[in-house]
Amino acid sequence: MNFSQRVLNMQASPIRKLVPYAEEAKKAGKTVLHLNIGQPDLETPKAFFDYIENYKPEVIAYTHSAGLMELREAFSKYYNKHDIPFTPEEIIVTNGGSEAIVFALAAIADPGDEVIVIEPFYANYRGFAEMINVKLVPVRALPETGYAVPSTEEFEKALSSKTRGIIFSNPSNPTGAVYSEEELKRIVDFAKKHDLFIISDEVYREFTFDGTKHISTMAFEEYDRTIVVDSISKRYSACGARVGVFATKNKELYNQVMKMAQSRLCPPMTAQLGTIGLLEMDDSYIKEVYEEYDKRRLAVYEELSKIEGAVFKKPKGAFYVSVKLPIDDSEEFVKWMLTDFAIDNTTVMVAPLTGFYATEGSGKQEIRIAYVLESEKLKKATYILAEAVKAYNNR
Amino acid sequence: MNFSQRVLNMQASPIRKLVPYAEEAKKAGKTVLHLNIGQPDLETPKAFFDYIENYKPEVIAYTHSAGLMELREAFSKYYNKHDIPFTPEEIIVTNGGSEAIVFALAAIADPGDEVIVIEPFYANYRGFAEMINVKLVPVRALPETGYAVPSTEEFEKALSSKTRGIIFSNPSNPTGAVYSEEELKRIVDFAKKHDLFIISDEVYREFTFDGTKHISTMAFEEYDRTIVVDSISKRYSACGARVGVFATKNKELYNQVMKMAQSRLCPPMTAQLGTIGLLEMDDSYIKEVYEEYDKRRLAVYEELSKIEGAVFKKPKGAFYVSVKLPIDDSEEFVKWMLTDFAIDNTTVMVAPLTGFYATEGSGKQEIRIAYVLESEKLKKATYILAEAVKAYNNR
Repeated sequence: MNFSQRVLNMQASPIRKLVPYAEEAKKAGKTVLHLNIGQPDLETPKAFFDYIENYKPEVIAYTHSAGLMELREAFSKYYNKHDIPFTPEEIIVTNGGSEAIVFALAAIADPGDEVIVIEPFYANYRGFAEMINVKLVPVRALPETGYAVPSTEEFEKALSSKTRGIIFSNPSNPTGAVYSEEELKRIVDFAKKHDLFIISDEVYREFTFDGTKHISTMAFEEYDRTIVVDSISKRYSACGARVGVFATKNKELYNQVMKMAQSRLCPPMTAQLGTIGLLEMDDSYIKEVYEEYDKRRLAVYEELSKIEGAVFKKPKGAFYVSVKLPIDDSEEFVKWMLTDFAIDNTTVMVAPLTGFYATEGSGKQEIRIAYVLESEKLKKATYILAEAVKAYNNR
Repeated sequence: MNFSQRVLNMQASPIRKLVPYAEEAKKAGKTVLHLNIGQPDLETPKAFFDYIENYKPEVIAYTHSAGLMELREAFSKYYNKHDIPFTPEEIIVTNGGSEAIVFALAAIADPGDEVIVIEPFYANYRGFAEMINVKLVPVRALPETGYAVPSTEEFEKALSSKTRGIIFSNPSNPTGAVYSEEELKRIVDFAKKHDLFIISDEVYREFTFDGTKHISTMAFEEYDRTIVVDSISKRYSACGARVGVFATKNKELYNQVMKMAQSRLCPPMTAQLGTIGLLEMDDSYIKEVYEEYDKRRLAVYEELSKIEGAVFKKPKGAFYVSVKLPIDDSEEFVKWMLTDFAIDNTTVMVAPLTGFYATEGSGKQEIRIAYVLESEKLKKATYILAEAVKAYNNR
């Protein structure tokens, strides 16, 4: 009995690999400030549970495989408010954004086929692609440019006869970059030229700062080739609900993906009910959340700017910032902070960027900070990080 | 832009294909008795929502990728009660049994690899296998034997150098067969001889009748090769919750599957909470449900026995019975019942068995009845079916 090569090829998350060291540190009495995962600390709106309590059904039956119609209508209304013209019939509710990505990749690529990805990228893209034997071909964004969209020449270099699509997140996890209209247009033009699908992961849509406006890939009206991946996880601090969206105006693609959706029967009903409650709220919640993240972003930015040799631009979106540090091995550095470093018995855990690259050996000087703690703690954490960089290089 | 061959290969469910005809019939004022899907009509225990209401967290955060420890402990206790010695560390909570099957297939088979399946089989196995390019190789069970496990010679014929495992459900969906110790031993011995994994889908564990005892594949203590797939959907009438289980005592296999589980982050939190509530209930609920299904089973059996030329054995488990009827095309027959037949303006919808076979052209004389209505309605429905068979052949 052998395991499949595909599962053997999958790498355990580099963040998770380091968790035992964090646990050790805590056991030894250290406080560990966690900036390593995108798990917001903010309260989930009560509207989620209120809706479930008010509308609980007698039988928790299968819902429509595309999700409850009432929920798809609520999503459609939400998208229209953002000038994204999805009707309920163009939306499939999924088990988190995760399942939407698997559906998208499986529908456009066979084993051995390729999908171009802007790297560094959301680390789990890799696991999804490996599970279904799709090859991710990276095109590299650089910390020096604030992780802007690479040049079209770079995209051309990544192209092969097996290329079927392009995937990226905008606003970007892990970099915090938000793509401009010009940058997006270059991606869309490239996709048009080579007849590729575009998988646009827009789960951080609301979180763009300094007056930067989020532009959906749907704005380019390349409807047949555009797939939007979405999720309520970050927007409503409801990561554990597992409610995401696969949406496209390409009817035939929608029907193909529905075959996969029907196989797995339906997304979770109680979370679907709760999400209707969330989507029915007015905008004051999102505004408050937005302001909180903006405050945190500025706090992190201020402290990071004090690190000599750090390469990064002011992050414009999501709740992450990736930064190149004067270190030689980000995994070692993160581990060392947990095992050998502390200030006032407190240390910090961040994510080494190695796991966010498909190119072997990349990300060794970069880390990702998720600003998921309140500003004062964040400032302290970033200060500890700055001191750790110095101490690490003098050790 | 082309769609992937794998998604094009997936067939829309033959049950779903017929739904528009049922809708037409209803629009025309007919009553349609639905025996076509395994969606129980029984109330979901209040314990599900009670637990959520009592334990709702401030933040709906990601849970452990294997599921909440408290839930895995509850599942472990449940299994131990059934003499299945799974510890919480051997359990991964999944998005329904569906995801557990995808995990199992992906972990043991690469694209092009084969898994033997006893057919007719749960129709969605096919969709899962196609999505990840695993080939299901059927070994045929016959209505004449009550869909007993085929002979070892048949299994040998299905074997190739690419065979990686065997998958089956016991009690069986769609046939209602429950495998005896001798039958299971033959499967296990075959797997041992050829060093294959066994994927044992036991979601109908509680539903075995006439004193038949359910035997888990775990009873054979072939722990390294045994994977148990489970779900709360049918047991607690909670299909829409999407809580399933992947369980194995093979530690290395567990770790491999955990990489996939980590990619998709976690199963739905609210449903996990609700499931703790369900598993904490005493056995009176299951007993009541069991008795209800048994009553229904006998009602269906009695009426089915009146159909001249029907080939089937008294079903022993799950809440299905498959039957071979004197008809030429089960899909056409089901459609015809919806469009052209009624007694007292009432007709019946059952599932043609064609979609439950991998062998092209099979199942044309067979249908599946799900006894998910109360006995009186069931009797009426089966009577209508019996009359329909006569009328269909005289039309």
